[in-house]
Amino acid sequence: MDYKEVIDNIYNEVKPLFGQGKVADYIPALANINPRQYGIAIATLDGQIVGTGDYQTKFSIQSISKVFTLSMVVRHMGGDLWKYVGREPSGTPFNSLVQLEHEQGIPRNPFINAGALVVTDKVMNLYHRPKEAILQFVRSVAGNDDIYYDKTVAQSEFEHASRNQALGHFMKSFGNIDNDVDSLIDVYCNQCSIAMTCEDLAKSFLFLANHGTNPHNNENILTVSRSKRLSALMLTCGFYDESGEFAFRVGMPGKSGVGGGVVAIIPSKLSIAVWSPELNEHGNSYMGIETLERFTTNIGISIF
Amino acid sequence: MDYKEVIDNIYNEVKPLFGQGKVADYIPALANINPRQYGIAIATLDGQIVGTGDYQTKFSIQSISKVFTLSMVVRHMGGDLWKYVGREPSGTPFNSLVQLEHEQGIPRNPFINAGALVVTDKVMNLYHRPKEAILQFVRSVAGNDDIYYDKTVAQSEFEHASRNQALGHFMKSFGNIDNDVDSLIDVYCNQCSIAMTCEDLAKSFLFLANHGTNPHNNENILTVSRSKRLSALMLTCGFYDESGEFAFRVGMPGKSGVGGGVVAIIPSKLSIAVWSPELNEHGNSYMGIETLERFTTNIGISIF
Amino acid sequence: MDYKEVIDNIYNEVKPLFGQGKVADYIPALANINPRQYGIAIATLDGQIVGTGDYQTKFSIQSISKVFTLSMVVRHMGGDLWKYVGREPSGTPFNSLVQLEHEQGIPRNPFINAGALVVTDKVMNLYHRPKEAILQFVRSVAGNDDIYYDKTVAQSEFEHASRNQALGHFMKSFGNIDNDVDSLIDVYCNQCSIAMTCEDLAKSFLFLANHGTNPHNNENILTVSRSKRLSALMLTCGFYDESGEFAFRVGMPGKSGVGGGVVAIIPSKLSIAVWSPELNEHGNSYMGIETLERFTTNIGISIF
Amino acid sequence: MDYKEVIDNIYNEVKPLFGQGKVADYIPALANINPRQYGIAIATLDGQIVGTGDYQTKFSIQSISKVFTLSMVVRHMGGDLWKYVGREPSGTPFNSLVQLEHEQGIPRNPFINAGALVVTDKVMNLYHRPKEAILQFVRSVAGNDDIYYDKTVAQSEFEHASRNQALGHFMKSFGNIDNDVDSLIDVYCNQCSIAMTCEDLAKSFLFLANHGTNPHNNENILTVSRSKRLSALMLTCGFYDESGEFAFRVGMPGKSGVGGGVVAIIPSKLSIAVWSPELNEHGNSYMGIETLERFTTNIGISIF
Repeated sequence: MDYKEVIDNIYNEVKPLFGQGKVADYIPALANINPRQYGIAIATLDGQIVGTGDYQTKFSIQSISKVFTLSMVVRHMGGDLWKYVGREPSGTPFNSLVQLEHEQGIPRNPFINAGALVVTDKVMNLYHRPKEAILQFVRSVAGNDDIYYDKTVAQSEFEHASRNQALGHFMKSFGNIDNDVDSLIDVYCNQCSIAMTCEDLAKSFLFLANHGTNPHNNENILTVSRSKRLSALMLTCGFYDESGEFAFRVGMPGKSGVGGGVVAIIPSKLSIAVWSPELNEHGNSYMGIETLERFTTNIGISIF
Repeated sequence: MDYKEVIDNIYNEVKPLFGQGKVADYIPALANINPRQYGIAIATLDGQIVGTGDYQTKFSIQSISKVFTLSMVVRHMGGDLWKYVGREPSGTPFNSLVQLEHEQGIPRNPFINAGALVVTDKVMNLYHRPKEAILQFVRSVAGNDDIYYDKTVAQSEFEHASRNQALGHFMKSFGNIDNDVDSLIDVYCNQCSIAMTCEDLAKSFLFLANHGTNPHNNENILTVSRSKRLSALMLTCGFYDESGEFAFRVGMPGKSGVGGGVVAIIPSKLSIAVWSPELNEHGNSYMGIETLERFTTNIGISIF
Repeated sequence: MDYKEVIDNIYNEVKPLFGQGKVADYIPALANINPRQYGIAIATLDGQIVGTGDYQTKFSIQSISKVFTLSMVVRHMGGDLWKYVGREPSGTPFNSLVQLEHEQGIPRNPFINAGALVVTDKVMNLYHRPKEAILQFVRSVAGNDDIYYDKTVAQSEFEHASRNQALGHFMKSFGNIDNDVDSLIDVYCNQCSIAMTCEDLAKSFLFLANHGTNPHNNENILTVSRSKRLSALMLTCGFYDESGEFAFRVGMPGKSGVGGGVVAIIPSKLSIAVWSPELNEHGNSYMGIETLERFTTNIGISIF
Repeated sequence: MDYKEVIDNIYNEVKPLFGQGKVADYIPALANINPRQYGIAIATLDGQIVGTGDYQTKFSIQSISKVFTLSMVVRHMGGDLWKYVGREPSGTPFNSLVQLEHEQGIPRNPFINAGALVVTDKVMNLYHRPKEAILQFVRSVAGNDDIYYDKTVAQSEFEHASRNQALGHFMKSFGNIDNDVDSLIDVYCNQCSIAMTCEDLAKSFLFLANHGTNPHNNENILTVSRSKRLSALMLTCGFYDESGEFAFRVGMPGKSGVGGGVVAIIPSKLSIAVWSPELNEHGNSYMGIETLERFTTNIGISIF
């Protein structure tokens, strides 16, 4: 299949939709971005890399980073992690405290903010220098050492982190956070600030399409079973409270971020990353979702 | 692959687990069943049918019937249905009213009881004789006319339907139920009482594994797109508040019922039905879940 | 104190506020009422009865009837009632099911609809002919045999009782309703339909101002202790989710109904009833609340 | 009335109940207290002060301090405060975040922790040195300069303040906290650590029984109207989710703290303070509630 042609066609169909969504505005560093940017990149297991539009422009990956930290922790802790965070869709917005209160400080899944904070807390337990470790992991799976924290974004996130501070202290009150909450929020704001391109992201998710092994260097990152389970988690929980809708319309395991990035995989085949900063009402990239729905329809491949 | 050998092996491994779960006890007609029954059946797209254990014993399909009524309604209404019922995992128990109150009488998805009642209400709008129509649909997809309502179970359900009566009246207060609530509960209790064997069930789900077309007679029941979407719904919502866990551990779209039945599909390949009446704490067949987890692991095929 | 002068003055001050609220519109029989009606009546323990405006016009007492049925039940059951219904403010709207689900079918207090249904269910246990018994009780405390059910209102309520049907079936599913739900709703819709005047209502609440004894005929209806406790309940729970606000601004135990009636007492002194059909956003009479706030301020008597 | 005799009798009746409750154990400084302590003090508007048992032993007033800070803020801000905190009973535990999430960061009332934090935040806005200002206010209303912060308790509270930190950050995320959250928690932990005796507390609440004017020195602290409203708030919200029950059984406006203190008033008459560290399941002093119920019954005076 000529994936370049496929994404070029979709790019031209979707581009006129600029203006349907709204750029994230909770921090100035994200609010000031030019909304009319749009890129698509695909990486296949047989080594192709194709892209179109702004696919080589760096953007803030935000919540997509949760997949990287989760991979790091599952690699070391395996099933022990699931004592501290669940695996069920949350049914409530990504930054909700209600569910936590009813369930004794155990977040529903690792992709809502509370769950991601638990995962980052474990990264801090596992690594003496957690920020360096996270960056190293991301560079390694992306096969690109030119990936950095965007310190302006990280600082801006930290200054507007009241809700995440609340989540952290709240879970600590239940005994489900080990580290100092301020330090935890610092690491978390940094991981969210990582800047990558669509090409980087597509490459960095290939190990999940490849059942846990990095196809670039054959490094085994996760066992087959853990990799499949992580994919199942992305399918059921990767798109906040639009996860069911995404599975229904698109049917690919994936993860989105409020920076406008979306990345998804077709197991045993490829990974695809889309970026466009305008978000729909669920906080997912408006054009990213449109792009993936057309992609899965056009190529006629889905997991279902 | 020799599916008969696969399921025989699993049957022998899982059989010693009798006693780990607990038979549904909310109605006498289910509570009095012999718990030590266990059967497995597989139907493949290339025409094989294999079974082991009590795979030819009829049991009450209960919530599995929700897939049949949903198929009937989606076939006629398509996307219009989704104005009345959502497609997101509920995050709350199957018979909860809390979510309904917060979301104006629109149930989260068609597999929680509230959502299934909305679907049955639509069946009643579409068919003059809804009970006859449901039975005819089930017989048709199963390729077996020897399928009936178990009137003892239906009557027993009706007499213990206070919670479902509450759901019906509650949604009616929001204008989301068209028919008389007593009549609705009557049809619903009947559809839940349908008695089928594992073999029947495996055959009746093959059209979903086959992207909407019944492989027995080439009848097109759902479009490819609708069939895939229904599978996505089963994956994200088919096992009550254990759906995420099921996707995580098993990774097959499927549906369970409190009668102890579980049925799941591998798209483009096969459907598998398991029955054992003892339920785990989420209301899913304890041995059914165990069986499917081993099955997906042993055959090395999964959607992820 | 010249109560006639006091209420005449308030009447003239408040009358220009017509149009600030909105008549209850959930049933036609209430929606069609002329909104520009307004009456005040006071009955004192020393035998005075004064009134102004439409104080001799009958209106639908609706939820005010909950005080009568509660008195009937507490008289017979005493503290045993509190196993089936709580005594805490609900913190949620009057017809909410959320709290019931979290607290196993035990309503928070007898003045939210769920709690009132439990109380009426007990009336049905205590009396062979509950509708006759309720009417007889109300006539007796009001000292007026010319009080009836408004059958048009009762019928209209019954036809729009989906939410109360839901509450009844829901509590029955927890085992907290003894009688048939349809019969319960019938009795409940009738008690809400009772038509009384402000004068009737003021007189009928005097036994509560008089610590349980009807001052007209010295009949002991409740013990001193039970009467005081019922007053405490009215203060903390009598005005739906505006109860705290009412205690804060007015500081009198009382009860309101969506027919626009409000009745309150000053213990050891008097009872006052106000009627005006326009409701504020909490479902309480807009002008009724205004009237009582001015009354308590003007006469300089409050329980605090 | 011989109040000394009244409380001596109650003291002797209630003392055998030691062991029914459980000392607060969330911080070591409170957990290590000797549970078998019990004191009662009464201060009347006509100048009597009587006490029995450990009524001159200092203890940690904890949440009782919320009445002092609320008085300070209402004195300056009047009704403007109610834009930031409500006046309705909460229906949920004192440290819940659920209600806050549903109501946009506005706490239900000033006596749940979230509401008290909003009030303390306003104290910080009003006073350059808030800790000094609070202490000065308390010493003034108690007529005793020998009242201090217990720095050991304050420090211990601060080290176990995760839940309150969460509440503070959460409300800040809604824009309902002005000051730095760490500083806010510091002031709040200090106000909770104030050590007073039953005698001090009874004297310090007399201005509320006296409709806002300190009877010791005729200083007007609150207007009559504000004082009555504060009493109404104590009645409806002063005892966490046991407030309705307390109004029902005891019928006095009051406030409790997890240090085991309870203080209540009979308007125009007296204030009474009880202390005993063992708490019931709602976090109120077991023997304190028992004492006040007997007191109001024995003296035959109540607001109802």
